[in-house]
Amino acid sequence: MRGPRFEIDPWAIRESGLDFDDLGVCEAVFALSNGHIGLRGNLDEGEPADMHGTYLNGLYETRPLPYAETVYGNPEDGQTIINVVDGKLFRILVDDEPLDLRYGQIISHSRALDMRDGVLRRELEWQAPSGRHVRVQTTRLVSFTHRSVAAFEVVIEPVGSPARIVAQSELVANEPVPERSGDPRAAAALAAPLKAELHGHHELRAGLLHSTHMSGIRLAGTMDHTVDGPPGTLTEIESQPDLARLTITTELEAGEQLRIMKVLAYGWSSRRPAAALRDQTEAALASAFRTGWDGLLTDQREYLDRFWEGADIEIDGDPELQQAVRFAVFSVLQAGARAEMRAIPAKGLTGRGYDGHTFWDQEIFVLPALTYTAPDAAADALRWRHSTLDLAQSRAQELGLRGAAFPWRTIRGQECSGYWPAGTAALHVNADIAEAVRRYLTVTQDETFAAGPGIEILVETARLWCSVGHHDAGGAFRIDGVTGPDEYSALADNNVYTNLLAARNLRLAANAVGRHADRAEELGVSDEEVATWRAAAEGMHIPFDAELGVHPQAEGFTRQRRWEFDPEDERPLLLHVPYYLLYSSQVCKQADLVHALYLAGESFSPEQKARDFAFYETITVRDSSLSASIQAIVAVETGHVDLALDYLAESALVDLHDMADNTDGGVHLAAMGGTWLAVVAGFGGMRDHDDGLAFSPRLPGGLDRIAFRLRYRGRRLRVEIGRREATYELLEGEELPIHHHGDWLKLESGAPVTRPLPPPLTPEPARQPPGREPARRAHGERVSVAPDE
Amino acid sequence: MRGPRFEIDPWAIRESGLDFDDLGVCEAVFALSNGHIGLRGNLDEGEPADMHGTYLNGLYETRPLPYAETVYGNPEDGQTIINVVDGKLFRILVDDEPLDLRYGQIISHSRALDMRDGVLRRELEWQAPSGRHVRVQTTRLVSFTHRSVAAFEVVIEPVGSPARIVAQSELVANEPVPERSGDPRAAAALAAPLKAELHGHHELRAGLLHSTHMSGIRLAGTMDHTVDGPPGTLTEIESQPDLARLTITTELEAGEQLRIMKVLAYGWSSRRPAAALRDQTEAALASAFRTGWDGLLTDQREYLDRFWEGADIEIDGDPELQQAVRFAVFSVLQAGARAEMRAIPAKGLTGRGYDGHTFWDQEIFVLPALTYTAPDAAADALRWRHSTLDLAQSRAQELGLRGAAFPWRTIRGQECSGYWPAGTAALHVNADIAEAVRRYLTVTQDETFAAGPGIEILVETARLWCSVGHHDAGGAFRIDGVTGPDEYSALADNNVYTNLLAARNLRLAANAVGRHADRAEELGVSDEEVATWRAAAEGMHIPFDAELGVHPQAEGFTRQRRWEFDPEDERPLLLHVPYYLLYSSQVCKQADLVHALYLAGESFSPEQKARDFAFYETITVRDSSLSASIQAIVAVETGHVDLALDYLAESALVDLHDMADNTDGGVHLAAMGGTWLAVVAGFGGMRDHDDGLAFSPRLPGGLDRIAFRLRYRGRRLRVEIGRREATYELLEGEELPIHHHGDWLKLESGAPVTRPLPPPLTPEPARQPPGREPARRAHGERVSVAPDE
Repeated sequence: MRGPRFEIDPWAIRESGLDFDDLGVCEAVFALSNGHIGLRGNLDEGEPADMHGTYLNGLYETRPLPYAETVYGNPEDGQTIINVVDGKLFRILVDDEPLDLRYGQIISHSRALDMRDGVLRRELEWQAPSGRHVRVQTTRLVSFTHRSVAAFEVVIEPVGSPARIVAQSELVANEPVPERSGDPRAAAALAAPLKAELHGHHELRAGLLHSTHMSGIRLAGTMDHTVDGPPGTLTEIESQPDLARLTITTELEAGEQLRIMKVLAYGWSSRRPAAALRDQTEAALASAFRTGWDGLLTDQREYLDRFWEGADIEIDGDPELQQAVRFAVFSVLQAGARAEMRAIPAKGLTGRGYDGHTFWDQEIFVLPALTYTAPDAAADALRWRHSTLDLAQSRAQELGLRGAAFPWRTIRGQECSGYWPAGTAALHVNADIAEAVRRYLTVTQDETFAAGPGIEILVETARLWCSVGHHDAGGAFRIDGVTGPDEYSALADNNVYTNLLAARNLRLAANAVGRHADRAEELGVSDEEVATWRAAAEGMHIPFDAELGVHPQAEGFTRQRRWEFDPEDERPLLLHVPYYLLYSSQVCKQADLVHALYLAGESFSPEQKARDFAFYETITVRDSSLSASIQAIVAVETGHVDLALDYLAESALVDLHDMADNTDGGVHLAAMGGTWLAVVAGFGGMRDHDDGLAFSPRLPGGLDRIAFRLRYRGRRLRVEIGRREATYELLEGEELPIHHHGDWLKLESGAPVTRPLPPPLTPEPARQPPGREPARRAHGERVSVAPDE
Repeated sequence: MRGPRFEIDPWAIRESGLDFDDLGVCEAVFALSNGHIGLRGNLDEGEPADMHGTYLNGLYETRPLPYAETVYGNPEDGQTIINVVDGKLFRILVDDEPLDLRYGQIISHSRALDMRDGVLRRELEWQAPSGRHVRVQTTRLVSFTHRSVAAFEVVIEPVGSPARIVAQSELVANEPVPERSGDPRAAAALAAPLKAELHGHHELRAGLLHSTHMSGIRLAGTMDHTVDGPPGTLTEIESQPDLARLTITTELEAGEQLRIMKVLAYGWSSRRPAAALRDQTEAALASAFRTGWDGLLTDQREYLDRFWEGADIEIDGDPELQQAVRFAVFSVLQAGARAEMRAIPAKGLTGRGYDGHTFWDQEIFVLPALTYTAPDAAADALRWRHSTLDLAQSRAQELGLRGAAFPWRTIRGQECSGYWPAGTAALHVNADIAEAVRRYLTVTQDETFAAGPGIEILVETARLWCSVGHHDAGGAFRIDGVTGPDEYSALADNNVYTNLLAARNLRLAANAVGRHADRAEELGVSDEEVATWRAAAEGMHIPFDAELGVHPQAEGFTRQRRWEFDPEDERPLLLHVPYYLLYSSQVCKQADLVHALYLAGESFSPEQKARDFAFYETITVRDSSLSASIQAIVAVETGHVDLALDYLAESALVDLHDMADNTDGGVHLAAMGGTWLAVVAGFGGMRDHDDGLAFSPRLPGGLDRIAFRLRYRGRRLRVEIGRREATYELLEGEELPIHHHGDWLKLESGAPVTRPLPPPLTPEPARQPPGREPARRAHGERVSVAPDE
């Protein structure tokens, strides 16, 4: 399984040539998004395509969730992200021959995602079957500053001889998309999800207005253009219910150019009427045209410059990893930058994978990076969660529980999980959300959020845990029958990760109540209730296997069947082995106890972390892309620094190398966020669990230097890790005390502080299951990483 | 929830009047079946009906099983029993007015299921809206002796004045039946499941031949008649693809009769061609006509006389219970008598409940009664299981296991369970099948079966257990992550019931191999393999809660959340509470550990049984009709003899009182078999686990006498339990040693032995969850039993 061969470049993802087999992966990797609008990296001319994709955050269609047997509490309706009105399309005819790269001859073709400019550039020279030769340059962006706008520039130029050119700039609704679900009812519901309501055109502008059949969401897509061609260039605009089209016809001399600028604006709402949405998109167009193409480009660059100032990660000694790590950070930004009260899906807005759903990935993998690099975006994501609190309260009630039970997977907020042992039962998502609130408040000290959404989330999730768990006869607080992060286990008792995060959740709620007595009263929290939270947290049962000297990830886990790992086994195991065997065996899809070692590190001694990490290394197969980054973090902490580099690379390259063979469904955003974590919490050793920032930097043998930037409480920091020392620099803001490997030091602006790294730990090498060792990252030079070949 | 009011009669279920709200329950209770063919107790004239039902054992249609999320190993296709060609129909016109009891006036109406004659009789006087008055008498039977034949007699007689009568005797395919599944695809598949292939008629005979669309089963239904009416009575026969009809027209004087005899024959096969099936049914008709109506009645009575000689249960002191217990035994016979290499479904052939599937109910609830009363039928049911061994082997392989994994639910043998935690994971079904083999061999000493199907089932299920379980570091053999009998728990470790029955299964296989060395060699069993079976059995881990002094039904169970029982809770819980809460709480749908106390009683001391029973009584809600009978057995053994009577009554009356509000979907065959168990293993205290028969009789205060008959190793026995003594009588066969309350005694033909009962045990009264106490059965008189009112 190898993806396309992207060229190494520190600030761009670049492809030369075109491999039709890699279209899907490229569509995901070259997707542009600001978190509000997402455009897959489809070819401008539309065909060939793996899957057309224009996604609007929060715009979904409802579909029935079928079950072979009825189970109380199973959600009846699912939510599915849909491909909306496609405005990326530019059909081009060269002397009446459609530009389609499957025909004629590609003389040259390259695409580059520029992570500083925030644009996707394409250059193409093509010889039509007739022999006519054209050069086409396109640039597209989804604006970070104009939230509802995407913009395109297309330049067409004949080479060698004149050509008649027709360019059609389109808006298309209900494009056929391949249906990959086995359920014909779902296919029917999603085959043509948009119902036309309005269409219109005027001069070079046209728009379509549709609504979804079931979910009742209305959307407007409007486009406007400037056309710059030689005299005689003609334009014609038209619109129909499912198609709007600007047709430009011209005759170009060799070297003469037709230049088209297109701005696309979307508006959608389940409440606003059609006219309001139409007007909203036209206003957005007017604003974008006032800014102009160059202005949009400049704004985009400036937005990104500001972002990278507080977010860049430098990796010296492994150029491919440098590129991949920047791609990871950029992907996280694209997914979350302007989501603003919408969810951040597991695939961002880059594909239809996981139906466009949001999971705990948002809070545990994506928000750490955003909180430290774009804290406003993190706040917005958490405000979205808070906006679904009423749904989570209803869900808890439906489940016979108190407080709020946030959904395992959703778009709008309703639980959409169709397999409850790995959905509803994964109640840890609630503690994960509380943990994200804690992190956000620690990093920003945003008192408005703390007294508003923050305390409400913490109180309602604490109430959930008190009703989920119970004290046993011995006084221990038990949480039975839940599913932890590892999806090769389910419905287990006292999952250590869940219990530790639930205990933290309970304490956070109790502390928040102490700080906001007025809000607590409004929320009906009594001292008695707070006492039950503290008692549950204090009594929280954490199972331990004294014989093996390790923590079972849940009670009894270390007594289960040991897995007979076979390097020949087909992967991922879940597609080839029944859950019965997986659930009752000591085999981990992904970090679970090891995740607790990181997130609740204060509950484990260093020796215990070392023992637990070594144990779980031997049984973790990493069939989830959420695993490697967490293993990297704990590997660094337990002294396996070179192994951590291998895991960092695996996490960072999952999409650029299509390592899971499913990047065509969208980028693995949790792995992207995890990549940031592996650098910052892993090699940087950053922890923020106590009231302050602590670092324990380490450099792997394969790298010469790592540097990263953070935003923290209004400041900007830079941490640089060299072979022998680390340097901390306060780039902006007031002085800040931090920890370096356990020692306090004070940072002041303009006065970098350098401290030596302590001597390396020298643990026994960790062993992974046979055949599941991560690809070794060479020391100091780039090699292929393809563990699944 | 009250069903129809059947009149009390020791040998009949009788209804006077007609309540249209009770049609469904009556259709199930008045269903006739020989295990091969089943006719629901629909009114002869067809309408009104709750659900038309003519079922042929093993004739099913395939339908897709939908899932919201894909899980490896989930079966893709389900199997559903279908209503086939309906030959019960007699439409009657009285002076051109259709006899429909919803119109005109019912002067009298009664139906009676005669359990000695094996017929359903109906008497009806009806006044048409026109004022015309007729008497109709019908008798129907499904022949126990002519396996593929059902027969009907209809007598029509005007009262008071002459009448013109038209009677239409029909065969109808693809009758509309209400679709109760929520899945529109299933509905579509089952709306008209039969595809016409042939039809024909000749004289008074007509037939239809169809096949199913998906499952490819062909079926022929043929009818023939004799008509006895006054001169001028005319007949006309016709046939079309989905309808065959004999129309009889006559004019009757008051008191003059039209008498129609109809014989119906069915043949079905997935392999035999159409002509062969047609000829087969016509041959069956010829044979039945040679026997004649009176002969069919006589054969039926003689068959049942022979059956009751070895099967009757007498209950003195509670006439309603006497009736219900006989109905239970009769229902078991109807379901299994002539099934012959087909499964015995959970509802017999009385309704479409559970899709017509067979579960462990067959081996653990139905076969005990059949083994001791109709051992040939028990052998046939086990031969059917054996005939699916290849499918069970494939399923085991699919599940990554060795040996054979029999399906949790099926018609033909393929796993049809659509919710694996309460389906595939209920692996105990395999040990249940082995237990049924053991019981059959103990009771019959059938060496041919032992060396044939018996050893093959035992070896393949033993192999399964060895691959399901594993030895832990301490040498204990663990079976993790399975679901035991209690469906309010799932995926638990070391379910005591499962582990004890698996251990027995392993030992049975080892012993069988010892006795049949040649067969063992053919099956590839080595001494090494047998040693692993014995080691697993010896090491089998049985968890125990030393603090509470009780067995957890599975590991950790007694540390889970205690359920807050509320008499106001809606029931059954599974329809109102999510499985998450049920699975992680100490609440039992049905006997589980208590079932182990009975089936593996040798593994528990009397004191332990008493403690365990008392504990589980407090948390068992009996939301399953499989529970009360097992609780009755252990209640007797632990001294709760009056409580046992309450449970016996609950089990026996489940359908006659429609206590679960779903008898319209078919009778609860497991409760019927359980009723036999509650009498024989409960009050009779019969155990056969060792090599011999042991009884420990007890009589509850509410009864004057219980007597039951058994077949055992070619003998017939009668056991009578009085207030102070029990009497054992060998009715037929060679002398037999038995146990009475632990003492040996020898039975000889013609020499009944009477022994005193030991003094009663006097345990503390058992407590049930509030609101779930069984209805108290009054002492010596009949009272209403309606726990769910």
